Amino acid sequence: MALKKLKTADPHIKGLAALVSGPNSILYHKEDLIAYDCDGFTLHKHLPKAVVFPKDTEEVAKLVTYCSENGLPFLARGAGTGLSGGAIPINGEVIISLVRMKRLLSVDLENRRAVVEPGFVNLKLTNSISDKGYYYAPDPSSQYCCTIGGNVAENAGGAHCLKYGVTTNHILGLEVVLPNGDIIEIGPNGIPDAPGYDLLGLLTGSEGTLGIVTKITVRILKNPEAKQTVLAYFDRVEDGSQAVSDIISKGIVPAALEMMDKIAIEGVEAAAFPVGHPKDIEALLLIEVDGISAGIEEQINQILDVCRARNVREVKVARDELERGRWWANRKTGFGAMGAISPDYLVQDGVIPRSRLPEVLNRINEISAEYGLRIANIFHAGDGNLHPLVLFDARIPGETEKALKAGSECLKACADAGGSITGEHGVGIEKKEEMRFVFNDDEIIAQSSIREVFNPHNLLNAGKLFPSPGRCVEIKTELKAQQEVIGS
Amino acid sequence: MALKKLKTADPHIKGLAALVSGPNSILYHKEDLIAYDCDGFTLHKHLPKAVVFPKDTEEVAKLVTYCSENGLPFLARGAGTGLSGGAIPINGEVIISLVRMKRLLSVDLENRRAVVEPGFVNLKLTNSISDKGYYYAPDPSSQYCCTIGGNVAENAGGAHCLKYGVTTNHILGLEVVLPNGDIIEIGPNGIPDAPGYDLLGLLTGSEGTLGIVTKITVRILKNPEAKQTVLAYFDRVEDGSQAVSDIISKGIVPAALEMMDKIAIEGVEAAAFPVGHPKDIEALLLIEVDGISAGIEEQINQILDVCRARNVREVKVARDELERGRWWANRKTGFGAMGAISPDYLVQDGVIPRSRLPEVLNRINEISAEYGLRIANIFHAGDGNLHPLVLFDARIPGETEKALKAGSECLKACADAGGSITGEHGVGIEKKEEMRFVFNDDEIIAQSSIREVFNPHNLLNAGKLFPSPGRCVEIKTELKAQQEVIGS
Repeated sequence: MALKKLKTADPHIKGLAALVSGPNSILYHKEDLIAYDCDGFTLHKHLPKAVVFPKDTEEVAKLVTYCSENGLPFLARGAGTGLSGGAIPINGEVIISLVRMKRLLSVDLENRRAVVEPGFVNLKLTNSISDKGYYYAPDPSSQYCCTIGGNVAENAGGAHCLKYGVTTNHILGLEVVLPNGDIIEIGPNGIPDAPGYDLLGLLTGSEGTLGIVTKITVRILKNPEAKQTVLAYFDRVEDGSQAVSDIISKGIVPAALEMMDKIAIEGVEAAAFPVGHPKDIEALLLIEVDGISAGIEEQINQILDVCRARNVREVKVARDELERGRWWANRKTGFGAMGAISPDYLVQDGVIPRSRLPEVLNRINEISAEYGLRIANIFHAGDGNLHPLVLFDARIPGETEKALKAGSECLKACADAGGSITGEHGVGIEKKEEMRFVFNDDEIIAQSSIREVFNPHNLLNAGKLFPSPGRCVEIKTELKAQQEVIGS
Repeated sequence: MALKKLKTADPHIKGLAALVSGPNSILYHKEDLIAYDCDGFTLHKHLPKAVVFPKDTEEVAKLVTYCSENGLPFLARGAGTGLSGGAIPINGEVIISLVRMKRLLSVDLENRRAVVEPGFVNLKLTNSISDKGYYYAPDPSSQYCCTIGGNVAENAGGAHCLKYGVTTNHILGLEVVLPNGDIIEIGPNGIPDAPGYDLLGLLTGSEGTLGIVTKITVRILKNPEAKQTVLAYFDRVEDGSQAVSDIISKGIVPAALEMMDKIAIEGVEAAAFPVGHPKDIEALLLIEVDGISAGIEEQINQILDVCRARNVREVKVARDELERGRWWANRKTGFGAMGAISPDYLVQDGVIPRSRLPEVLNRINEISAEYGLRIANIFHAGDGNLHPLVLFDARIPGETEKALKAGSECLKACADAGGSITGEHGVGIEKKEEMRFVFNDDEIIAQSSIREVFNPHNLLNAGKLFPSPGRCVEIKTELKAQQEVIGS
């Protein structure tokens, strides 16, 4: 941009501004930077040094090279909807915003793929191809505004990932700017199962710590011939949980199998998209099956039978697309809906083996009682991806810390049940320490050493994802030295 | 093992033997080692230093530590059925054979997983759980003898990977011995989408260059309620290719969609499992659909309609499981069947976008004519994974080299069509140079630098997978230096 307009003496702001074209391509005044001090994880706030808006891959590469050569910490940001703080500039980073790189570059229906820039909004892809009978499967609840670049960074999931898999299952190729400024293409030409190491899988879900994705080839799918959606109300959580297991063990793979508990239902019914769920039930299931028409009815009948055998109070099939859409809007705005019944909430994201659902839900109830905080549960029951929502009031001194602790205990319960600490929201800064629930030091070192290869100066999105690997290395070196003394 | 039995003065043989328990747990005589001088890629042969047979993870870790500390090159081997030479000891490696680690450790039907040791044979898993209605999806043609550890190393595919995905889509967790002797678990507790980097994806398909897998948690699937198999004979390859595209574009995802051309049919009909395919057709398709019964018939009718619209000569549905089994045995032994019509053959493994099938098959015909060598085609048409089989006679001087060149040109044709050089057989030593068809120097460096992290002394399976990365780095350094001179 035109340098003469800049009102700063900072040479780095001038240096960065010279690398991005067009008007308004850099922000550096404090009042502009405040909008970038956090993402969807709002409990930590830090101002970036600047926010730059490159228009293409070359500008991204120039910015990265500039930051690397000048020792400036930097990170990439999409729509900023991430829930674990991955885009928070905790080191006063230069934020490389990808929102100007928002084009749909090509659609190849015959080979079922599309190429998008990272700032392209998730739902726009389906909207762009639905008239031709195609769609993009990963559907995080934020899909109306989150970007596909951000989805790649976090390996985003969504309600329909039970049948169709998470983002990594739909990425065929990436163009990436590495922290040294090199531009590489992986998943050559959008062919999956590329030879060599699976960099595609490694980059997807690496939470913006290995490189900046500048182009994405995604798989697109043909719309299923038919879909049907079932809503089932249960008086006991155990019956709902058991119905989930029963459906899966019949060999049915629903497109989606969602569960909400009583507090969650209270929230969604008090918010923008109420649909009249009874407020005295303990659990509801939202179950969708899709595929060729001939098979759907049989599956739906099996699902209805399962629900009845598990004492369902009421079970119904969506009358039409309108009703289906209303049920989904009610579900998909569920996190935000908590704002209608609580001043603040913290969403967690644990994964458990499906069979441990009842016991982990019981443990979450105990945690709720121990901390004196209500915890709502809205989750992808089919794949065991829980979302406990800890409700709290940040105005009450100490309650934020209590909520964080309660959330962490929920993750511990998941890990102890043979599960994991995140299914789709990522680790970011939020769950760094909880990584120790699932990985030992060797495992953390094996991972973080990969980061060092890509990112030897640790300037790209530093301090995220891993609990102090340096400390692990120290411990290990100490241990080895001790063993040698003992062995000698 | 008991050291006194060893008839060698080699201190390393003694050192290794001391680390493995039980009788016959080390081979070191030349006549024993000959059986290990190559794998399924037989054009290069090298003797290993020794072959050791650890019984458990701890013994593997001890062997790895010993090799690392003593500077001995080493590699892991399963059944040795790999087709790209990944298990060939080109540096006189110590081979760590995993065939004694062949237990099925646990089956968890409720959560749909099983845990196996790496030497467990692929097909045995399905055989162990089929009576309960479950199976393991990846089905390489060698599944009756190949091991799941080898499948992980090569990210093996198979006929049914069109619908169900390749090995990486079915691996939930791994225990791995790293080259430094550390034992790590990834995909904690078999939960997919683990936090942190996707080491599971990185290790799967890394061709034994990053670590040695000692335990594998796999996903198991419920048997489909029904399956139907169609055989279609075409007088023109183009019609067969077009039928493939038509089936996919109807939104049908067959479980398998295989194609064989005229020479391949000549081979399979002359070999162990002939089924009476007409020898004057140009192409056949073997198409299988599975799922719930209600949907199958409609899909089969659509497939029959597509074939008829594309001038099929004859199309039929398998009468029963027996006929279906015979068709599959005929197909799955197709590579070996080439031995019935040619003294030698070289199987290649390219991937192309499905829409480029007719033109790439034409190009393969041209290559066949240019080199004066017959090329049969047996392949996974549904996912564009070609297997050109170059027929040759190694006794004719120069013909092996000609076959290798023709094979390489087939891969070039795939890469030029926007495809890749391997779908499921791996790179190994066979296709190292062909990596340059799909990756530039930066891309090769990005991959090979990961290897250096895991394997800093380059003792584990060195010289495989990448074309001399050292040379790439040199080139890059030279280029940078030149640019600096020009820029100054």
